Amino acid sequence: MKKIFKGDIIYTKNSNSFEVHKDSYLVVEDGVVKDILHYIESIPSDYEYLDYTNKLIIPGFVDIHLHSSQFLNMGLGMDKELIPWLNTYTFPEEAKFRDLEYAKTAYTKFVSDLINKGTTSSVIYSTIHKESTMFLMDLLDKAKLRAYVGKVNMDRNTIDELCENTNYSIEETEEIILSSKSNRVKPIITPRFVPSCSPELMEGLSKLAIKYNVPVQSHLSENTNEVKWVKELHPDIENYASVYNKFGLFGQTKTVMAHCIYTSDEEIELMKKNGVFAAHCAISNFNLSSGIMPVRKYLDYGVDVGLGSDISGGNTLSIPQSIVSTIQASKIKWLESNKELYPLSFSEVFYMATKGGGKFFEHVGSFERGYNADLLIIDDSNLSDINKFDVLDRLQKYIYSGNENNIIGVYVDADKVS
Amino acid sequence: MKKIFKGDIIYTKNSNSFEVHKDSYLVVEDGVVKDILHYIESIPSDYEYLDYTNKLIIPGFVDIHLHSSQFLNMGLGMDKELIPWLNTYTFPEEAKFRDLEYAKTAYTKFVSDLINKGTTSSVIYSTIHKESTMFLMDLLDKAKLRAYVGKVNMDRNTIDELCENTNYSIEETEEIILSSKSNRVKPIITPRFVPSCSPELMEGLSKLAIKYNVPVQSHLSENTNEVKWVKELHPDIENYASVYNKFGLFGQTKTVMAHCIYTSDEEIELMKKNGVFAAHCAISNFNLSSGIMPVRKYLDYGVDVGLGSDISGGNTLSIPQSIVSTIQASKIKWLESNKELYPLSFSEVFYMATKGGGKFFEHVGSFERGYNADLLIIDDSNLSDINKFDVLDRLQKYIYSGNENNIIGVYVDADKVS
Repeated sequence: MKKIFKGDIIYTKNSNSFEVHKDSYLVVEDGVVKDILHYIESIPSDYEYLDYTNKLIIPGFVDIHLHSSQFLNMGLGMDKELIPWLNTYTFPEEAKFRDLEYAKTAYTKFVSDLINKGTTSSVIYSTIHKESTMFLMDLLDKAKLRAYVGKVNMDRNTIDELCENTNYSIEETEEIILSSKSNRVKPIITPRFVPSCSPELMEGLSKLAIKYNVPVQSHLSENTNEVKWVKELHPDIENYASVYNKFGLFGQTKTVMAHCIYTSDEEIELMKKNGVFAAHCAISNFNLSSGIMPVRKYLDYGVDVGLGSDISGGNTLSIPQSIVSTIQASKIKWLESNKELYPLSFSEVFYMATKGGGKFFEHVGSFERGYNADLLIIDDSNLSDINKFDVLDRLQKYIYSGNENNIIGVYVDADKVS
Repeated sequence: MKKIFKGDIIYTKNSNSFEVHKDSYLVVEDGVVKDILHYIESIPSDYEYLDYTNKLIIPGFVDIHLHSSQFLNMGLGMDKELIPWLNTYTFPEEAKFRDLEYAKTAYTKFVSDLINKGTTSSVIYSTIHKESTMFLMDLLDKAKLRAYVGKVNMDRNTIDELCENTNYSIEETEEIILSSKSNRVKPIITPRFVPSCSPELMEGLSKLAIKYNVPVQSHLSENTNEVKWVKELHPDIENYASVYNKFGLFGQTKTVMAHCIYTSDEEIELMKKNGVFAAHCAISNFNLSSGIMPVRKYLDYGVDVGLGSDISGGNTLSIPQSIVSTIQASKIKWLESNKELYPLSFSEVFYMATKGGGKFFEHVGSFERGYNADLLIIDDSNLSDINKFDVLDRLQKYIYSGNENNIIGVYVDADKVS
């Protein structure tokens, strides 16, 4: 399968600048980027030619933290902080996913919105329920999206309907791992967060992760009350990150931790040492009054950072809106830090939203040779039809002032998704 | 002209709660709300009946601070603070409006987007140019929108192309006032901000405002460097607000000041005393690294507060997005203030976006008897088709997670706009 996409190509190879190829040809073989050419005499006959002249061609968006089961709750219940919010809005909604029919309806809407918003790769929490989780994985696979999907594990401190038997929780997780066959949609070990997981559960999950080389996702230091709670639950362990680390869930296999707002320097160093990714969820952190992650600090330490929409703490799956909120939050952090933590630039945050988070999937989020050809076609003509803007300004206008209506094509491994 | 709108009606009479009338009838005579009925036996034959059963009917949005001439710059140049941003991006764009043809194209797109976003009343800056300002006023009037439009006045500290002769600036402003005939689109005196206006200009504009009873808009304390600059320009006057007050532009006629981030308690008291409105522009204040207005303090003082999209410091005309950002900003302010300045609630900010800002126009932004029937029809079926949400939750989901595609009807004085 060979394809050539023609258009105004823009992406980030590193976080400090954009690679811009106006009116160029993206050459793809077997779903993988081969080359970008500025001139082709004639299209070889064994190539499919997709002419998107004057359209932007950008990497598909990567969302490395979101709760698919909270999709229908999006935009509700923004008047509480994390712990009461979980108990009031989130857990009751998640309990509904025991009913496979409810899950089918909800997840079908979720996947459709994910495609509309141009998110081609995502790292997803489902719920504790095996059947509906496997349904979601199958649905994503059929939609040709790339994802890690985690059945949630919880055996303490949640509502009765969501509180699992420890062994059963581990067994069901293993069953999902063993039944997974897709190249694009894979399982991820998902202890919800320390307060909902007993030491035995965390140990059991770590063994699974290592045995099958499956990655891990969880939450870290989102809210000050949560951090205190973890300290009460594990008074003998020096900090929150070390709880995960002690139980083998902090980089023993590839790991991503969401939020990381109230993380100490020692914890950030541990993340760097263990290769743990941070998922920055600016919108959710605003909505739940959590605070602002000092992203600049993580970048200075060399920690990998990607973006998470974190629905329904976040109120939209739109990664462009996450990009905007991330930059905005970093500007407020800059003021709060007496101008020490310098604001994030547009290229830095676009990088996080594509190649930065994409690194969790390996060769995703860039158009360098060897990367998966996951891409969006953006018709931005309504945003730039009077003044002639350059390609970078057009991208910035689309991210800041466009919306999903501008996305006219979504491809994963060069296969058309919508 | 008598009309009845049927649907799920929701609005705020005060800032602490919503008035909800499910499946009810909004009765309008001559563009003004007469009543809301829960039951009508049969529609009287002299009424036009608009059946929006199952749709939300809400007040049109009110935007009390925006720069129409910066519409085409929206989403560009978010890497600078206020003063360099003005000089690099904003002033060069505004200079183009000397060309009436350019203004026609740009303003036509602007007005179309304003309607798409459901903003029915707005307080607008144009540029220094009389002709293009009058074109804009005419365009808004023909579109049936409600607006105050201000030709900008500047006679110092700007680029040459935008620096006016003082007397000429005053004369052109008077010509616009004298030529204005519309009931919906009216002039407003618009000294850009203290740094761009000489004392003579401010005094002249104040005389015009009083002579013709025309309202005033300007900027106040958006950025710390701006505040310092004003202090250098007027070392003898105690604070920024008092400069406007001294020159008769601070409540001598109805006045709105945008931003008000770094305002002292004395200045807020003066605003309250003089009845000066504050336009809160959360998105712009994020984007230009300005800071977060302590809105709660203004509400405690009893100052009238409305929302401003402030394009293109703001990156969208969407008032729903301004609502979301305003609530988010207030949550960060709450954390920053050691939980003293309590976060703004959804009803408080929806009120600001409708009746709060609408007060600047008089009877706008509510469905109480005697208010102008400015309203939006919201088809939110894509957001709430599985779980049955109540009307308030549906409104919240639309504001947080919907977009302009949900707006299927826009009315001003019960006249259809789109």
